[in-house]
Formats: sequence, C-alpha cells, structure tokens
Amino acid sequence: MTPRYAQRRARVADALRQEGLDALALNPGPALTYLFGHRFLLLERPILGIITREGRSALIVPELERAAATRVLPDGVYAYPDDPDQWAPAVTRALRELGLTQGRIGIEPNRLRVQELWLLQQAAPAARIVDAGPLLAEQRAVKDPEELAAIRRAVAVAEAAWRDLLPQWQPGVTEAEMARRLTVALLALGSQTELPFEPIIAFGEHAAEPHAQPGERVLVEGDLILVDWGARVDGYVSDMTRLAILSSTVPEDLAHAATAVQDAVNAALRAARVGAPAGAVDQAARATLAAQGLADAFIHRTGHGLGLDVHEPPYLYEGNERALQARMVFTIEPGVYLPGRWGVRWEHMVHLTDEGPEVLTQLPLDIVRLRA
Amino acid sequence: MTPRYAQRRARVADALRQEGLDALALNPGPALTYLFGHRFLLLERPILGIITREGRSALIVPELERAAATRVLPDGVYAYPDDPDQWAPAVTRALRELGLTQGRIGIEPNRLRVQELWLLQQAAPAARIVDAGPLLAEQRAVKDPEELAAIRRAVAVAEAAWRDLLPQWQPGVTEAEMARRLTVALLALGSQTELPFEPIIAFGEHAAEPHAQPGERVLVEGDLILVDWGARVDGYVSDMTRLAILSSTVPEDLAHAATAVQDAVNAALRAARVGAPAGAVDQAARATLAAQGLADAFIHRTGHGLGLDVHEPPYLYEGNERALQARMVFTIEPGVYLPGRWGVRWEHMVHLTDEGPEVLTQLPLDIVRLRA
Repeated sequence: MTPRYAQRRARVADALRQEGLDALALNPGPALTYLFGHRFLLLERPILGIITREGRSALIVPELERAAATRVLPDGVYAYPDDPDQWAPAVTRALRELGLTQGRIGIEPNRLRVQELWLLQQAAPAARIVDAGPLLAEQRAVKDPEELAAIRRAVAVAEAAWRDLLPQWQPGVTEAEMARRLTVALLALGSQTELPFEPIIAFGEHAAEPHAQPGERVLVEGDLILVDWGARVDGYVSDMTRLAILSSTVPEDLAHAATAVQDAVNAALRAARVGAPAGAVDQAARATLAAQGLADAFIHRTGHGLGLDVHEPPYLYEGNERALQARMVFTIEPGVYLPGRWGVRWEHMVHLTDEGPEVLTQLPLDIVRLRA
Repeated sequence: MTPRYAQRRARVADALRQEGLDALALNPGPALTYLFGHRFLLLERPILGIITREGRSALIVPELERAAATRVLPDGVYAYPDDPDQWAPAVTRALRELGLTQGRIGIEPNRLRVQELWLLQQAAPAARIVDAGPLLAEQRAVKDPEELAAIRRAVAVAEAAWRDLLPQWQPGVTEAEMARRLTVALLALGSQTELPFEPIIAFGEHAAEPHAQPGERVLVEGDLILVDWGARVDGYVSDMTRLAILSSTVPEDLAHAATAVQDAVNAALRAARVGAPAGAVDQAARATLAAQGLADAFIHRTGHGLGLDVHEPPYLYEGNERALQARMVFTIEPGVYLPGRWGVRWEHMVHLTDEGPEVLTQLPLDIVRLRA
C-alpha cells in the first residue's frame, strides 16, 4: 500500500530468498506492524501476516478486522467469520492459494503462539517451521531517520514527565500512586496511551528488584527512589532509569555504588563501536563493576535494543558475538542490587553512529536530592 | 504461599489427574497470575510456571525475577543467568527434577509462545504437548466473591470516567485526544495503569469498524461517538460500549438501528440462563437482528467472558455448545455496522446467577444527546 511498508516487505522477501526460506508467518506484534503498517491486536482470535519469498503478502484476520486489513493490503486479505471452527479453513485456504503447502516457513518463536503454530502445521503438514527471529531482527535493528526521529520524540516526552514529577515526591505517596501520576504526565505530554511498559517506581529496599512492581509502599524521608519509565510516540518507544532521594544528602555506600554504575555506563559507552560485538559492551560494564567488587550485585545484562518494541535485538549480554551496526538504538543500563537495602541502575539510550555512540537521553546520571 | 493460590493450584492438579495430564506449563498471562499470585511480564526471556499432577509447582525465571518468584513460591524457583544460552539448561533441569521427561504436558495454545514450546520439547523430547486451554478456562470462568467484587469496582471506575468525559465532547477534539483524556480519567478514578485495552473511540463513519483505533479524525457537529472502554482494579477488568451524538436529535435510521441492537441485547439477556449453551445467547441476539434485516451488518460474536483477562471463556458465538454456569461473568455486545456511515454497539457486562443474569453495567443503553 504505502510504499514504505511495501518496500520493507520486499526487503524481507529478499532476505527470505537469501536464507532459503519460502515464507514468513507473523502474529500481531512489532514485526507485523513494521511490515504492514497497522498495529493489529493480539487477542484470542488468530491473526497472521504472511510474506512469501516471491514477495506476495496476505493477512488472515477475523471479519471485524477486514476493513483495517484491506486498507493496508488491498489484495490478499483472508477474513473469517467469528467462530473458532473457521480458523483452520481460513489458514488452509490462504496457504494453499499462496502455494505454501510445503517448504520452510519462518516464524518469530518469541511472538508466534502455539495456537497459530498448530494452525500452520495443520494447514501445511509438509512444511517445516523454522526460526526467522534473527532475519527479522536484522531488518528492524537498523533504524531509518523517520524511526530515529520518533524515538527522539519519545525520549523528550519521557524526560519532560520526569521533570513534571519532581515536586510531587512527598512523604506519604505510594509507589502505585506515583506510577499513576507518571502515566498521566506521559499521556498529557504526548505519549500514546499504550506505554512501552508500566513504569517501575521502587522506593528504598524495593529498588533492589530490577522489575519491581509499584505497590503500596509509602515514601518516607531518606528513601531512595528508582524510576524506570518510557513513552511511546508514533509507535516508537523510550526507556530510561533515573534516581532521586528524599534527602539533602546521599549515604556514602549508595553514592559509591552510583558512581560505580556510572563508571560502568561510561565504560560501556566507550566499548559501543560499530563492528564491536554486542557482548563487548556488556563485558566493559561488567568488568568495571567487578573491579569494585560488585560483580555479583549486577544480576542482568547491560542493555537491549528498542524501537517499535521495548526489548528487541541487539541484546547486550555476555558473550553475544553479534556485531553492532550504525543506526542501531539500544539501552545501556548496568545496575547493582543489594537485597533488603536498595538498588542502583542508570539507563541511557544510545544511537550508534560511525563516530561512536550518541546518547539520546539528556537527563544527567545524578541522584536528584529532593531536599535542600 | 498464600492459601488462595495454593488452593487454586491444588484444584488444577486435581483437574490434571482427572484429564490424564501429567503437568501444566504456563507462560506469563492471566492463568499464571491466577495460579501463582504474581503478574510476571511476558518479555523476550522465557518465564514458565509448572504445576504437576502431584501438586508440585515450579517457576522458571530470569535471575532478575528470582525475588518476586521466591515470594510467591518459596520452594521451586529455577532462576537462570541473563543469557539465552542458559534458557534450555534451566528448563531441562526443572523438568528433570519434577520428573517430567515424558507424559502429557498441558499448555495454553493462545498464550504459550513457540519459544517456550521448543524449550519444553527440547527438555522433554518424549513428552507430548497437549491443549489444556479448556481445563484452565473451566477453573477460571466461575468467579469467586472476591473476584466479582473486583469486577464490580472496575465497572464503577469505568462508568465514572464516562460521566467525567461527557462535557468534553466538543467540536474539534480528535479521537486520539479523547482516548488520552479517557485514559487519564480512568487512572485518576482508580484504575491500574495497565488498562484492559486501549479505549476505542470512533467518530462517525469510523464507528463502522468494531476495532477502530483512535486517530486524528476530528469531531464535528452531528457526529455519532462510539466509545468501548474499561478499567482494571485489583487485576480484574471491565469492558463496555456506549454511544453519544453531538446533536440534539438522532437521525431516524440510526435510532432504528440503536433500538434493534438494544432489542438484541434484551433477547440475549433472556437467553442467558444457567445450563443454556453459550451459543444460544448469540443465537438470540442474532435472530433479533436478522428479523430486522440486519443479519449481515452484525459481523462478530455476541460476547466474551472476562476477569483477569478481557477476553476469556465463555465465548458467545454461534453454535458454542458450552453450558453457561452460575457466577460466570461475560459481555453481551451485539452491534450493526454500516461501512462508510456509522456503527452501533451496546455492550453490557453480565454476572450469571441461578436466578438469571445480573447486569453489572449501570449506564443506560441510550444515545446520549450532547446538544440541548
């Protein structure tokens, strides 16, 4: 339809031929949005986007999505009536008409559900289902200028929301209440309602859990505040982590950890070069923390790519040999976690250029002292 | 841990024995939340909850989720380091220690991803993976009083947000802007930040698409406004659809359709009886619209169950033989759609009792006239 998406599908068809695949079959998710230009919802009814090596496309959708599907793909929509018995016939008909009764059909294993796998296998028992995750990641990891501009806008919205919230960290507020206010601020400032993820807001000892969920913990004087949040603008996301403290001073051990993590961020930034393996960035952050005796307190990888999805390749984990490329966008977010006490994480977003990493996030890596 | 979740897992173990299954393996989603009491996020890393027929449980999680997992399951957490190469060993070790190297392992096909399916198959090549969706649906479809109370709160929050928004439908606002304001109102009134779904707000001809996504369409005098929205409170959701018009009158054809759809709702309510097949409710709505010559304009099923998930069994579609039970909660939402012109849908939420359906949604089925 729009040349942009048709071009992307043509590029994927090229990649399919190169990799010896006959087709791609996608569930709703960022890759489907990326290739078809409409964000279908993943609900109980199967929706499949198909692209063949010859560059033919199809969308298998329930009848109530026919209009949206036809808008982005005038030819190739297979709409089925709203009855589970109609799912298999629709998939079978689409695959038969596309000539996909055998061969190798690529899928995204971390997106496609078993329900759709079984429908594909039933429709084409002679076909082999194979992992096309890397092929798709390759297409999506390098951002075009339009995508990068949307990411920059998502960063700006998220950072403005952080500033809006600063006066509101007062004793007695709960994590859940502040997560609600942060969400409202993000939307008021222009984020789409579908945030990349629910904000993580963790007070004091709760910050020792990297994926803490905001709860009824009440903020008290002296508490560390960890916030991990992002916005979505034109489909693209931001993701950052900053710290504040309800105090005029930072305890020495916490300050020491914050500096160590900041050093780890800087080491990772120095290692982030076009052509370097993704694992080298992780290694740089990890070695910095290990030199401070904090190796065991850093319990996750150093970062992840982001774009239409908040977690997508490249993943910056130990030993990942994948070479970084120009125009990739990813986070650098080392952390140290002391169970029962606190956690410290700094999360920057980085756009890799031939000259090195451009840090997209502008908020400094300082623990904001909320008391004079 | 908490008796509530241990009891639910024990009930599932009973069901596994009755159905001749050896275990259940779940991805993050409503069933995992229902059975373990923590809402893990479905990200790229595999998370699996396992329950065996003997009633043993395990959670396979990345290291950064170890604390949360241990809180809800002090024994049985398998945490792996943040590296994809560690996924298969963790799953293999868990299944081996649970004695699950063969037998029948039940999954939810519309939740489990191929990634986790492949990990299970790799860890237990002799095991058979089978559909346990109906078994789990059976457990979750009948709500206990605590669940019902949460659903009632979610209805109240959503209805209050509708009332808050009424003065704000003014010429010049866009669908997307009003979706943002509705989201803010829902959160301000007490909804959790993770809404059951992004509100559907469709003006005029956009309402002809049941799953229209709010966009830049501007509201003008005379427009019909369709809103399909819900809130989430204590994990449980609401889901309703109402109509307004930026006019003091309703065009005759629209009024006629609205009445026909209301008649279909009433017919469906009369058919919603304990012991009746779910399909009979759909049939009652469908026949009512067919009698008005609107059969082809009703392009989806009549309703769906809801609870922790916004779409869950029972599904009210033509021919569904599943018998309705007391304490099920589901929507009744027939609609008629005229492409290029408008759409009309009324969506009630219903709690089925032995005496018949209790309508949970209080807002009347009237097109609100926004002009005096």
